[in-house]
This record gives sequence, C-alpha cells and structure tokens, in this order.
Amino acid sequence: MPTSGEKKRLLTGDRPTGKLHLGHYVGSLVNRVRLQDEYECYFIIADLHVLTTRPEKESIAEIGDNVREMVLDYLACGIDPQKSSIYLQSAVHAVYEMNLFFEMLVTVNRLQRIPSIKEMARAANMDEEAVPFGLLGYPVLQAADILMPRAHLVPVGKDNVAHVELTREIARRFNYLYGEFFPIPEALVSEVPVLVGTDGQAKMSKSLGNAIFLSDDAKTVRQKVFSMYTDPKRIRADIPGTVEGNPVFIYHDIFNPDKEEVEDLKARYRAGRVGDVEVKEKLAIALNNFLDPIRERRAYFAGQKGLVERIIYEGTERVNEIANETLREMKKLMGIHALHNRIRRKALESIKAEQEAAS
Amino acid sequence: MPTSGEKKRLLTGDRPTGKLHLGHYVGSLVNRVRLQDEYECYFIIADLHVLTTRPEKESIAEIGDNVREMVLDYLACGIDPQKSSIYLQSAVHAVYEMNLFFEMLVTVNRLQRIPSIKEMARAANMDEEAVPFGLLGYPVLQAADILMPRAHLVPVGKDNVAHVELTREIARRFNYLYGEFFPIPEALVSEVPVLVGTDGQAKMSKSLGNAIFLSDDAKTVRQKVFSMYTDPKRIRADIPGTVEGNPVFIYHDIFNPDKEEVEDLKARYRAGRVGDVEVKEKLAIALNNFLDPIRERRAYFAGQKGLVERIIYEGTERVNEIANETLREMKKLMGIHALHNRIRRKALESIKAEQEAAS
Repeated sequence: MPTSGEKKRLLTGDRPTGKLHLGHYVGSLVNRVRLQDEYECYFIIADLHVLTTRPEKESIAEIGDNVREMVLDYLACGIDPQKSSIYLQSAVHAVYEMNLFFEMLVTVNRLQRIPSIKEMARAANMDEEAVPFGLLGYPVLQAADILMPRAHLVPVGKDNVAHVELTREIARRFNYLYGEFFPIPEALVSEVPVLVGTDGQAKMSKSLGNAIFLSDDAKTVRQKVFSMYTDPKRIRADIPGTVEGNPVFIYHDIFNPDKEEVEDLKARYRAGRVGDVEVKEKLAIALNNFLDPIRERRAYFAGQKGLVERIIYEGTERVNEIANETLREMKKLMGIHALHNRIRRKALESIKAEQEAAS
Repeated sequence: MPTSGEKKRLLTGDRPTGKLHLGHYVGSLVNRVRLQDEYECYFIIADLHVLTTRPEKESIAEIGDNVREMVLDYLACGIDPQKSSIYLQSAVHAVYEMNLFFEMLVTVNRLQRIPSIKEMARAANMDEEAVPFGLLGYPVLQAADILMPRAHLVPVGKDNVAHVELTREIARRFNYLYGEFFPIPEALVSEVPVLVGTDGQAKMSKSLGNAIFLSDDAKTVRQKVFSMYTDPKRIRADIPGTVEGNPVFIYHDIFNPDKEEVEDLKARYRAGRVGDVEVKEKLAIALNNFLDPIRERRAYFAGQKGLVERIIYEGTERVNEIANETLREMKKLMGIHALHNRIRRKALESIKAEQEAAS
C-alpha cells in the first residue's frame, strides 16, 4: 500500500489503447518497474484523453477492454499494485474541478504554441479548423492529473516534455496567486531511443501494424520475427550485410542476453557467413525467453476473476482520497472553501434556530 | 418547492458583482418574477465566471458579500425561493464534469468567433495575447450551466444570445453523438431597451457610477435624482426642453404610475413652463414609492439571521441532485457509466469471493 508522505511522488501513464508492445516496454514500463520502490507511483489510465480526439460512443465503448489488456500488461511486466496506484482518470471527480480552475491560469496563446496539439490533430485527421477546444486544453487536463497527487517526477516521452513544462508554469502560477502549495514537477525524459518497428519503420506502433505485443504467443512472435525487415541488399546469405540500424540486430542487442551469441551473429552477418534464418531463429528464441515470464504473470492475473478490475477499483479509490484532499487544500488557498463554508455555516445555524423555535 | 417535470425549465442568473440597480430590475428581474409561476426557475449565481477574468484571491474574497447583496435584491424584488432555486455555481460538482465533456464537442475556432469573448477581454484590460483559456471556454461552461437542469428557456441580454446559440449547438451535438437527451434551449431576449444611466450615458452601470441601487435609501435616491443629467440646453425653467431621450422622463415613463402627472410634466417641460426641480422632485417621490416595498422586503430578509444563506444552501442542494441526475444520464448515454460499472462490479465480486474463501 502506498504510504503517503514518506517518498516523493511520481505520476505517469497511458491512454488506454489496448495491448502494449515491446516499444512500450523499453520506452517506459521497464523504467516504471525500476522506479516503483524509490517513488510513490501513480499510473494513470488516461481515458478522458481519448475523448479529446475521439469522443464518439464507439470509441468510448472500446475503452473497457483496452483498459483491461493494458493493466494486464502493466502487471505482467512487474508493476506491483501493492506499491503503486493504477487508476482510471475519468473516475476521479476532483480532477475535473482542478482542470477548470487551472484553465483560468493559462492563456489560449500559450497553449497554441505547444506543437504536440497540432501533431495530435494531424494524427486524428483533423484540419486546423476542426481542433476541439478540449484538445487544445489537453495539456491543462494533464497538468491537473500531474498536480492531483502533487507529483515530483513525471516520466514522459520527448513529445510530452512541453506538457510538463506547462504543468510547471501552472503550478508556479497557482503558488504565486494563492500561496505555496504545489511542488514544481520535473520531467524525466526516457533516454531510450524509440524502438524501431518490425518493418524497419522508425517507431513500433500498433496502428502501423509493426508491433510485437507483450501478450503475443510464442508462435506469433516467431512469425513476426521471420517476416521482419532486415538489410534489403542481402538477397543471399553470402552477401555481406549491414548490422547498424538493422531491426533484427537492434532487437538482439536489447532482448538477447547472450552477448557472445549476438557478437558472433553480427560478425558473420557482416562477412556474409550467416543466413537470415539463423539470425531470426535465435532472435525468436531470445524474445520468447524474454516474454515467457511476462506471459506467465499475465496468465496468472488474467485467470484471477475480477483481480484486474479490483486493482483499478482500489487504486482509483485511493487516488480519489488524495485528489479530494488536494482539491480541498486548493479551495482553501483560493478562498472558495471559505465562501462555501460561510454559506453552509449560516444556513445550518438558521435551520437549527428554526428547529429550536419549533420545539 | 420546484416540482420537477411538470413545468418547463428556465435558467438565468448573474455574476455576483454586488448590489443590483434599476437597470437590472427593468432588464431582467421583473421578467424573472413574472416567469417564475409559469416555469421551474433556476437562478445561477455564476461565481466561477468571475474567475475567467479575475482569478485573484482578492477577487474571490469579495464574492461572499456580493452574493449576499445580490440575493437580497432578488428576494426583495419578489423572486420566491419556494418557487425557484437560487444556487451557487461553484458548489455544483457535476457541472465541472459536464463542462469537460462539452469541451470535446466544440472547436476552438467556433469559440474564437464569439464576439463577446473579445469584449470581455477588453473590458478586463487584457490584450489578445493574454486571453485566458478559461475565458475562451466561458460559453462552454455557460452551456454546462444551462444544460444542467435541461433548461428550455434562457432569458438573456443581447450580448449573451451568441452563448445560447453555442449551447444549442452543443446540445444538438451531444444528442447526435450519444442519443436524444437535451432539449434545445431557446433564448428569451429582453425586449426592454437598456436603461440609461443617471448621467445620461447609454447604460446604467455600477462601474460607471451612474446607478440607482435597489437598496439605496430614500435620501440617496433623492440626491441621485437631483444630480441627474437632463436637457443641457435648458439653462432656465422658461426655456422649452426636449423630453425624448431625456433620462428624467425615461425614468418617469417607467417608474411613475401616475401617467397624468407625467403627461402634464412633459407638456409643461416642452413649453418651458416647469422647473427641473419640480420634475425631479416628482421623480424622486415616484422612485421612492416604487422602491419602498422592495426596501421593506429587503430589510425583512436581511434581518432574518442566516435566511439568505439558507436559501442559497438549500437551492444549491436541490440543484446538486438535479445536476447529478443529468450527469448520470449523460454518462449512461456516453458509455462512461458502463465502463465504471463494469470495473466496480467485477471488483466487488472479487472482494466478495475473497471474503467467502477466508470465512
């Protein structure tokens, strides 16, 4: 169970887009597992962010399954719900309120200068005219997420650094206007370069169809490896090949713990003395060895009826308590608490006086 | 007590800027009093809207007194808390959530075309660079306010018609995406021209210092009337004067029930046969006669300890119930309810199974 106040707090998470792949593993999951002893961790399932580009019913209807698959992957990779809180963004009421208050503390102009918004709009096939107000406000909502547990550290990809910078500005502005309250969070940018896709494209991505999922079975992994893009100039095994930037060797470097085997394969590949089949066979074995314990844990969690949902439910309950406390403190500092309290107190006095007069 | 479902619903209200004046009376209060039998009325004290241009602590600290003065004026003019709900916007939790959902259903571009936003920014001495995101989103929050009780009618001034138009678009968009739910609200634009100020300026306004407040005492009203702007060409009582557009006669027309007296004064004014003193003396008497019952009711409500606060408190409690119901229905239609429910149900099953296994 997270013990509030002793450790520094960390928040990060994902949109619930479904099963996670090797790119997620090297880019963030491995880091989260490493950090969860040092920090009090909050892993947000950012389902409200889905609505910024796809508010349709059909898209919301997919969230449930996606959440389950994603959290199974979290748990399979070693995120420990006893140490960390995994929670569902849309079920944390205080964040909606925090979001509105923060919307007053940032200019339209400032948000329009954040490049990722335009990129997200492009990715969702929206022209500039069609950018929803909620999409422009996406980094403000993210600030509310981050400031909700008063997080100190926010592990993010490069494209989200600008959002953490905005969060820092909002935190500073709040502290300036209403009194010191929020720690100014730091971004922790992943040092790992983005993992190449099986097709040699720059980025492994579900939507590009070039991903090996953490939940793929051994046969599927083998098939995906055997259809991987390698050095296209090597039309026969005796032609010397290029190792650098070759996806098969990038994966070997990351996932094959037998460094000697990898060096031997590289040397023979460069010399034109190894076939793609052998290189890929050994990669498939290495990947499956790497994925086996992950699959095992995944099957364990998936097999326990209701366990994943319970982890989310209990995580969200814990987070709601923390979020309510943050909101309460915010309102105290802003003077909104005093306003509500004064009305409530005088009203209850009036009710009490009436009751006493009647009895 | 409002009886939900029988009558059509009406929502309107004010920012809590303090005491109301004769301009508010003729522009909106008289209308509200007239409509409160026909409609189930919701009168919003829009304190969150204050934050869109003045989020500072000092400005929030003024809200409490302003709310009290404003609600005293409501009650004094005949708004009946037994028939209508007077409530505090910032204390209605569901509206923050509704606001976020609606932010996804409107484009940045659409909001930027609403002229009142620029006018509000100008009035707050903000240049275009400094427009807060929350100010651009102000009409979305207003849409959440209006759609919260699923209002049918929204009495507004001319400058707010564009906001009701946006609310209609948001309601239609919601209904299209998720299923018919919201009635499409109609704007009811005040037919009464804006009341001229005592200085002859186009608009009576607290900030222009040309207002007669509903709570002014008889002596203050008399002083304000005697310093009123009249026809500047009439430097002596025997010079014929202009009645049309003359603030003194505009007020006579509205507030002096003795039509004969008014016609007599006008005729003599045009002929140069009456002094300003007589015209003003009779206006002061008429205004004080008009204000006397208002003052009396105001004093009654102000004298009952905690009554005003209780009216707001109980109104806000009622509204919270309605708002929660609206939000719940919205979430059902959107599919968010199903998402939360599925997690909750499975989690509770898991907890129950564990308890049974342990016992």
